[in-house]
Amino acid sequence: MEKRISVIKEWLYEAGEKIKNAENKKLTIDQKTSRNDLVTNMDREIQAFLIDKIHRFNPEAKILAEEDGYSKVNDFTGQLFVIDPIDGTLNFVVERENFCIMLGVYEDGKGQLGFIYDVVKEELYWGGNGIGVYKNEEALPKPPNSGLSQGLLGVNGYLFSHNRFNVRTIAEKSMGARLYGCAGLELIAMLKGHHIGYISNLSPWDYAAGNILLEEFGMKYSGILGDKLKFAGREYYLAGTEKAYEEMRRLINDSQSSKS
Amino acid sequence: MEKRISVIKEWLYEAGEKIKNAENKKLTIDQKTSRNDLVTNMDREIQAFLIDKIHRFNPEAKILAEEDGYSKVNDFTGQLFVIDPIDGTLNFVVERENFCIMLGVYEDGKGQLGFIYDVVKEELYWGGNGIGVYKNEEALPKPPNSGLSQGLLGVNGYLFSHNRFNVRTIAEKSMGARLYGCAGLELIAMLKGHHIGYISNLSPWDYAAGNILLEEFGMKYSGILGDKLKFAGREYYLAGTEKAYEEMRRLINDSQSSKS
Repeated sequence: MEKRISVIKEWLYEAGEKIKNAENKKLTIDQKTSRNDLVTNMDREIQAFLIDKIHRFNPEAKILAEEDGYSKVNDFTGQLFVIDPIDGTLNFVVERENFCIMLGVYEDGKGQLGFIYDVVKEELYWGGNGIGVYKNEEALPKPPNSGLSQGLLGVNGYLFSHNRFNVRTIAEKSMGARLYGCAGLELIAMLKGHHIGYISNLSPWDYAAGNILLEEFGMKYSGILGDKLKFAGREYYLAGTEKAYEEMRRLINDSQSSKS
Repeated sequence: MEKRISVIKEWLYEAGEKIKNAENKKLTIDQKTSRNDLVTNMDREIQAFLIDKIHRFNPEAKILAEEDGYSKVNDFTGQLFVIDPIDGTLNFVVERENFCIMLGVYEDGKGQLGFIYDVVKEELYWGGNGIGVYKNEEALPKPPNSGLSQGLLGVNGYLFSHNRFNVRTIAEKSMGARLYGCAGLELIAMLKGHHIGYISNLSPWDYAAGNILLEEFGMKYSGILGDKLKFAGREYYLAGTEKAYEEMRRLINDSQSSKS
């Protein structure tokens, strides 16, 4: 286990250096599904770099990743790496900060290790099943089990501003909504005990690493209706401290029953 | 001028050290107007510290500041210091990061010098009338005059989620909304050219320093309906690049005319 952790950390530090060295270079930016769904040459380069490292490390490993034909896996047996080469691409393009590299390791569908690397701040959050959660070399304390009214809530702008699934109602019962445009940063805020929850619309590579770390801290996550996450395509996502998660689930259920 | 700048920087660095040294100490937290409108002993201590420094520097100076009876000024002649000892108090309480100290210097009602200090990141943004805008010792380039569709927009959660003044509609025409819960951080993002605008509900100490820096970069700001800011009490606030500001003003006007 130890060996695997230090190997993966090295990959991430090296990937981070590549991104930092490229920061003043011109990016090639392409639109994917819409004008604000972007991919850059740097997303592609970092993904190819990580896939190469993984395949040298374990030629049998399966890979689920955001770009270029790696975005679907049908069989979760064996070792699976889930990668987001640049989480928060829009922030990366516009700000050159407020983005992360994320990597999750699964064995037979069960989360083992998660890594969220805030490249610009040089903060690597990592850990996993039975080993705790760390910020660089410092072990993080388990966040308190605070209720919805006792903390800040990370939200997706669409769900919040259209009150879909009661997300605005939920946010108004919290201490306040925050919107960073980067799942990794929202999940880091939960791991630090700064936010009590996160509601968004995510793809597997947005939650794969973070869920492993949340679970290690006894926090809860699921599809927004309490369903098991599918690891396939975008889905509405809910995470929270145990207490806040239950409160949010009830308010989301209210939004569904008032519909019928 | 030079002397005054270096003196004020020293005050802010010293105030920042006080906050950092207190970070692991227990805060005394009081509610002001609501459960999420907070003041801590640290807000009060930093404000008293800065007021003392200002009065030693210029016993005649007027002061407009968030806490404890300094929140109103009737006469803007002479030298006025506008202070927010901790901008983003809720973030400070919950996160111990994502807050700023802000200080603006006015002469006969005209902005001269502005300072926004991100204490945790140790980034001091400062500058003013005719001298440029700096991040620590580095001169910042003037941000491009990007339109609404070409950048990120800082928003207030209430206006955004209730589409007051068309703020949701405006955000949906931008590249995306961001919500940091700290005016200073939103204004810094504009000064770096990362955000094209900011719409919120602010008090004078939230915008006094930032406006001086925005103006130096040719950016625009006003009350949300285009009215002159009153420097008295809370008011709806709009700032943007020249181009984005005009686009947002039109969309805000649409929201008003559709009302009548």
